[in-house]
Amino acid sequence: MTFSLADLALPIVQAPMAGGPSTVELAAAVCEAGGLGMVAGAGLSAQRLGEEIVLLRAATTAPFGVNLFSAPSPAVAPEVVEHYAASLAGEEGPLGEPRHDDDELHEKLALMVELRPPVVSFTFGCPHEPTVDRLRASGCAVWVTVTTPREAVYAAGVGADALIVQGVEAGGHRGSFDDVEPGDIGLLALLQLVAARTDLPLIAAGGIVTGRAIAGVLAAGASAAQLGTALMRTPEAGTPAEHRELMAEGMRPTGLTRAYSGRTARGIVNRFQQSHADAPSAYPQVNHLTAPLRAAARAAGDAEAFNLWAGQAYPLASDRPAGELVTELANEARERLSEVAKMVEKPR
Amino acid sequence: MTFSLADLALPIVQAPMAGGPSTVELAAAVCEAGGLGMVAGAGLSAQRLGEEIVLLRAATTAPFGVNLFSAPSPAVAPEVVEHYAASLAGEEGPLGEPRHDDDELHEKLALMVELRPPVVSFTFGCPHEPTVDRLRASGCAVWVTVTTPREAVYAAGVGADALIVQGVEAGGHRGSFDDVEPGDIGLLALLQLVAARTDLPLIAAGGIVTGRAIAGVLAAGASAAQLGTALMRTPEAGTPAEHRELMAEGMRPTGLTRAYSGRTARGIVNRFQQSHADAPSAYPQVNHLTAPLRAAARAAGDAEAFNLWAGQAYPLASDRPAGELVTELANEARERLSEVAKMVEKPR
Repeated sequence: MTFSLADLALPIVQAPMAGGPSTVELAAAVCEAGGLGMVAGAGLSAQRLGEEIVLLRAATTAPFGVNLFSAPSPAVAPEVVEHYAASLAGEEGPLGEPRHDDDELHEKLALMVELRPPVVSFTFGCPHEPTVDRLRASGCAVWVTVTTPREAVYAAGVGADALIVQGVEAGGHRGSFDDVEPGDIGLLALLQLVAARTDLPLIAAGGIVTGRAIAGVLAAGASAAQLGTALMRTPEAGTPAEHRELMAEGMRPTGLTRAYSGRTARGIVNRFQQSHADAPSAYPQVNHLTAPLRAAARAAGDAEAFNLWAGQAYPLASDRPAGELVTELANEARERLSEVAKMVEKPR
Repeated sequence: MTFSLADLALPIVQAPMAGGPSTVELAAAVCEAGGLGMVAGAGLSAQRLGEEIVLLRAATTAPFGVNLFSAPSPAVAPEVVEHYAASLAGEEGPLGEPRHDDDELHEKLALMVELRPPVVSFTFGCPHEPTVDRLRASGCAVWVTVTTPREAVYAAGVGADALIVQGVEAGGHRGSFDDVEPGDIGLLALLQLVAARTDLPLIAAGGIVTGRAIAGVLAAGASAAQLGTALMRTPEAGTPAEHRELMAEGMRPTGLTRAYSGRTARGIVNRFQQSHADAPSAYPQVNHLTAPLRAAARAAGDAEAFNLWAGQAYPLASDRPAGELVTELANEARERLSEVAKMVEKPR
C-alpha cells in the first residue's frame, strides 16, 4: 500500500531543509511524534543520503519522506556567472567552482527504488511520468512541490499522489519549476486556486508556525501542513547559532533573493543579501560559487554573510524540542478548529 | 453601544473598492444578507459620500461601514511627477493635473461625526488619537488597515477597535501606512504575527474568494473575512465589463504596480501596468495625473490601459448576486469548519 496522509497521527509534515537545518534527529523526532519526518536529499551525495535513510530507519519505524531536487534548467551563459563572480570579489574567502550538475539525481532516484521510502517529494520541478511510475511501482508515494495553479495541473498530469502547495510566505527556496517565474502567490490564495484545478491531497507550505495557522490551512482545504521555519530553532535542527539568534530577535524583515544560490529563496535580510540583489538566475552554478563563502561566514559566526533562510512568520518559531512542539501545535490546531466550528454554528 | 463584529449574522465584511466597483447597491446587498456592507469614501466628494450614506440607510437598516483614506504622505519633488508624466506622452488621452490633496479628509471626518456610521475604517495610514477619540465618542467603531505587525501595534496604540489585516494577496491598493514600505507579508503569516502582538479583533483581507478560505482565516484567528475581489463580478458591483471578462477568463497573473496611482496596488497585468513599471511612489499626484487616461480607456473599452484591480485568487470570483453569494460563502465556511473539526477529532 502506498503511503497516504490519512496514515499519519498528526496532519504535520516536516519541510525538507537542505544545507544544515535538516538532521536525522529532527526527522526522527517528527516521525516519533506522529508527523512525517523528511530527509533533505539535496546537496549531499547519494551515498550520504542512503546512510541518512538507514540511520532514520534505525531511529524510528514510522513512515518518512525523502526530498529531491529535480533536474536543473539548462546552464546559462558562462559570462553571466563570471560577471556575478567578479561582483563577489570583495567578500571574505575563496569562491567555489560554478559547475552545472544534477546533484546526483539519477543515483538518488535509483537509491529511492532500492530503499523505498514511503514518500519521495520533489522540488524545483516535476519528475517525468516514467520516473513517477518507477517510484510508485517501488511503493513510494510521489509528491510534487508547486507554486502556481499551472504547475499543479502539470504535476497532477504526470501522476503525482499529492501536491505540496508552497505559498510566497515560505522560507528557503521557492519550489517553482522554473526560477524565471518563481511563483509569488500567497498560500491561502494558492490553496484555493489549486483546489479548483485538482482533487489531489494538498500539503500546505509557507509561513505556518502556529497551531492556528495549521488549523487555518486545514480549514482552507489542505490535508496537512508542512512546517520548516517552525522547526528551525528546535534543538534537533542543525541551524547555526547566529541564525537562531536572529530568528529569536524577530526584528528583521525577510526578503526574496538569488544572491546565495542563483535561485529565488526567502531569508532574513542581511548584508550579503542586500549587497548582491543583482544576482542572476543561475542555479546550481551560483550555489557552488558561494559555497566556500557561506562556509567561511558560518565558521566565523558572521550572520551578515551566509544565508538565513526563514519564512515570513519566523519570529514566532519556538525553541522547544521538535516532538513536543509538533504535538503541541497539532493539539492547538485541533482545539482551535473545534472552538471555531462551535462559534460559527451558534446563531447570532 | 459601539458596533461589534459579533453583531453580524455572517462573519463577512465587504472591502471598500473605491473608483468604480463599490456601489450603494452592493453595500446594501451585503448588509441585507447579514454581512457588513462598506461605502468607499475615497475619491468622491464629501457631499457625494454623504448622499451615498443616506441612500444606503434608505436601502437597509443593517449596520454598515465607511472607508476613508488617511492623510497622504508629504508631496514628492515636482520633478519626479513631471518625469513620470513625460513618460506617459505616448498614451491616448489628456493627462490630469497632478495635485497633492487630502481627498477632503477633514470634511469627511466631520461628516462621520454627523452621520455616525457604525464603522469607520481607514486605509493608507492610521488616524491620530484625537480623531479616533472623536469618532468613538460619536458612536463609530474605528478600524485600521494594517499590512505589517508594526502597523498593527501602532494602530492598537491609538485605540482602534479592530484591525483589517491585509495580506499581500489582496487586490487593489496596499493599505500600508507608508508606500515606501508597502508590506509584502502573506495573509496567513500576517494573521499569526499580528495576533501575537495584539488582542484586538482581526478582519482578514486578501485573496479570500471561497467559503473554504473564509473558514481558513476564521480558523487562523480572524473574527471576519473582508471580501473585495470576490464581489467584483456580482451584478451589483460597478466593475467595467472588460474588467469582468478578464476576471472570468482567469488566465493572466496579477502584479503589484504604482503605474496608475503612484501607490502600490495589485491588478491583473495589462499593457499599461507593464509599460510603466518605473512609476514613482507619488500618491495622489499620479492618481490625478492618470485619471483622464483611465477614464478614456474605460470609455473606449480598452482593458490594456486602465487599472484592473484584482486579488490573487480572482479567477474563482463568481458572478452571482451579491446577497446570494455572501450567504452561500458563509454557509460553505460553516460546513467546512464543522467537517474539518470532526476530521481532526477522530483518532487515526
